[in-house]
Amino acid sequence: MVEQVKVHKGLDGVVIDESRLSLVNGSEGKLIYGGYKIEDLAAHALYEEIVFLLWEGRLPNAAELEQLRQDIANAAVVPPQVIEAVKQYPKDADPMAVLRTAISMLAMYDPDSEKYTPDANHRKAIRLNGQAVTLVAAWPRIRKGLEPIAPRKDLTLAANFMYMLEGKEPAQADVDAINTFMVLLTEHGMNASTFSSRVTLSTGSDMHSAIVSAIGTLKGPAHGGANTEAMKMFMEIGEPENVATWFEENIKSGKRRIMGIGHRVYKALDPRAAVLHKRAEAISKGARTDKWYVIADSLATLARADSYFIERNLYPNVDYFSAIVLYTLGIEVDMFTTLFAMSRMAGWTAHIMEQAANNRLVRPEVLYTGPLDLPWVPLEER
Amino acid sequence: MVEQVKVHKGLDGVVIDESRLSLVNGSEGKLIYGGYKIEDLAAHALYEEIVFLLWEGRLPNAAELEQLRQDIANAAVVPPQVIEAVKQYPKDADPMAVLRTAISMLAMYDPDSEKYTPDANHRKAIRLNGQAVTLVAAWPRIRKGLEPIAPRKDLTLAANFMYMLEGKEPAQADVDAINTFMVLLTEHGMNASTFSSRVTLSTGSDMHSAIVSAIGTLKGPAHGGANTEAMKMFMEIGEPENVATWFEENIKSGKRRIMGIGHRVYKALDPRAAVLHKRAEAISKGARTDKWYVIADSLATLARADSYFIERNLYPNVDYFSAIVLYTLGIEVDMFTTLFAMSRMAGWTAHIMEQAANNRLVRPEVLYTGPLDLPWVPLEER
Repeated sequence: MVEQVKVHKGLDGVVIDESRLSLVNGSEGKLIYGGYKIEDLAAHALYEEIVFLLWEGRLPNAAELEQLRQDIANAAVVPPQVIEAVKQYPKDADPMAVLRTAISMLAMYDPDSEKYTPDANHRKAIRLNGQAVTLVAAWPRIRKGLEPIAPRKDLTLAANFMYMLEGKEPAQADVDAINTFMVLLTEHGMNASTFSSRVTLSTGSDMHSAIVSAIGTLKGPAHGGANTEAMKMFMEIGEPENVATWFEENIKSGKRRIMGIGHRVYKALDPRAAVLHKRAEAISKGARTDKWYVIADSLATLARADSYFIERNLYPNVDYFSAIVLYTLGIEVDMFTTLFAMSRMAGWTAHIMEQAANNRLVRPEVLYTGPLDLPWVPLEER
Repeated sequence: MVEQVKVHKGLDGVVIDESRLSLVNGSEGKLIYGGYKIEDLAAHALYEEIVFLLWEGRLPNAAELEQLRQDIANAAVVPPQVIEAVKQYPKDADPMAVLRTAISMLAMYDPDSEKYTPDANHRKAIRLNGQAVTLVAAWPRIRKGLEPIAPRKDLTLAANFMYMLEGKEPAQADVDAINTFMVLLTEHGMNASTFSSRVTLSTGSDMHSAIVSAIGTLKGPAHGGANTEAMKMFMEIGEPENVATWFEENIKSGKRRIMGIGHRVYKALDPRAAVLHKRAEAISKGARTDKWYVIADSLATLARADSYFIERNLYPNVDYFSAIVLYTLGIEVDMFTTLFAMSRMAGWTAHIMEQAANNRLVRPEVLYTGPLDLPWVPLEER
């Protein structure tokens, strides 16, 4: 009798660890960071407050928040050797490949890269959170032949990002929108990129290695790459009056899926999508055109009324409306996923520190289905 | 009543997928690649034969093997832009950080990096297998200020490695030893680095991203980093006559563990360790000194007779005697793990292609243990 082996392909429903960082309740569409509802955090919190919450397990007071803001802003400087290396990259390189390579290189200049104490990890986490924002803002300038801009010590991460991207004092409304985006994207349970960072750390490897794994994993269109794919889809539709026909020809026909609708965990509306839906609407009203919002909103409405989507509980996810927010802010489409990465940095580093504090090598099993007991045949007899 | 949730920390015994690549039977100490016993492969096979076996599911005939050897040798050239970048890295950079960063950068110059067909993946796998060997051989030269050497089209990967490392025609005995090491290290089921590469690919990310995750994961001392740690331990012991005292003071006292003894899966002797034990003995006989082999062998013998090791089924693993083989071949100690990485490249790329052929997003769950329902408190009231 052959023993039946249960294969957990995709690890659906397999609980890999405990975590105090976030609760994703997919059936009810709820998300909590460290005890606080995402709606409250999105409405009120600075990104740095979330960083403190995830790393320390509580909200900071004003002095603590200002200290962390300063620490991150001061540590956001990227060593000139790394900037010089990035300037040599091909101008058409994938922005996630650029970020992955540059962060990997940062390890060589981090005085703590091969130190493994909680203090060393905390210092590296501060640097990585700042430097990631600097690198994400630098690449669109570098590839256009513009000089990258160094971070300012007096700004928040969200403000610094817009400042370093545009090279001028950023508009407060834009900073607020980026801050909200960053808060919403900071942390999300045991998603694939976070999981990959914990697998990497579990061998006793270092934080930079773990973050590099996370960036490479986020890159895929079934994860962080979805925001770029969603925007490309909106651009393919092109005009609001094309939505119904496009839906009929591509989606009703079963030929394609809507990028940014559906999620492994959420079987109700992703609460982040609800916040971003409203933000996309508000920001589009003041923009040169609101047609991208109208396209996204119309398409989502069509899908919501369609039996295929209703039966499968397919709702817009966080990437769907974030594409509209980022595009309206003037972010280039192929950069979207790097903004996701810089926002998720606080969550990744928090998970890495949690893993380091109570580590066990992640080493699953695999069911071998190949041949057995083949006799060796010398090359000349094959 | 609270539902009990089973937490699979470390994923011990959790079967994540099916695979036709290798069978690791830890209780009996058996290892099979694609149907063939590791002992047969280690005795007879060229590394490129294993590459073919893993990628194609069968052994090649002579013409097929020669074609693959040529394809890999031709593709082993690293673009000059990447070589130039590596020359700028700090000379004291961790060799695994160098390899991780350089391979990440290779994606920017690979014409197939953002192509996802089986053919594109096959071409990338060929390049990565060749280029990894070139990079591993280049770094010890570059950091000494020597010019790196380009791969030769007429050599096997093992011969090319020794040629590019030393800059002269390699001795056949050395090439054979490296080839055996590479064959033994090529593939090993769902180890942490292989698993991380599959997690990364599962989001639809690309092969280079997946390999970069694998390299960062292999780096840890509980995985590929163990060979370096084992050699450092032998060097700390220093002389054969110190073994007994060192064992008493460090191991019997419970202060430390022996690096390279014990394995998550093997509860019998790792068959790769048996092969490498003999190889280490043979190669040490002809070397300037055999004291490192004597130290390793004596320490293993002490451990084998000790009740602590007997009760826990702790045997030397693949890293223990490979440290002696590599050191005797003149490989610098901090380079050991990069040799593991270049050898495992065929296994990683095989797993990546297997994952791509039948993919499902790897997205486990996590048990939230933090607070719930905390009311938002404005910053000024904290």
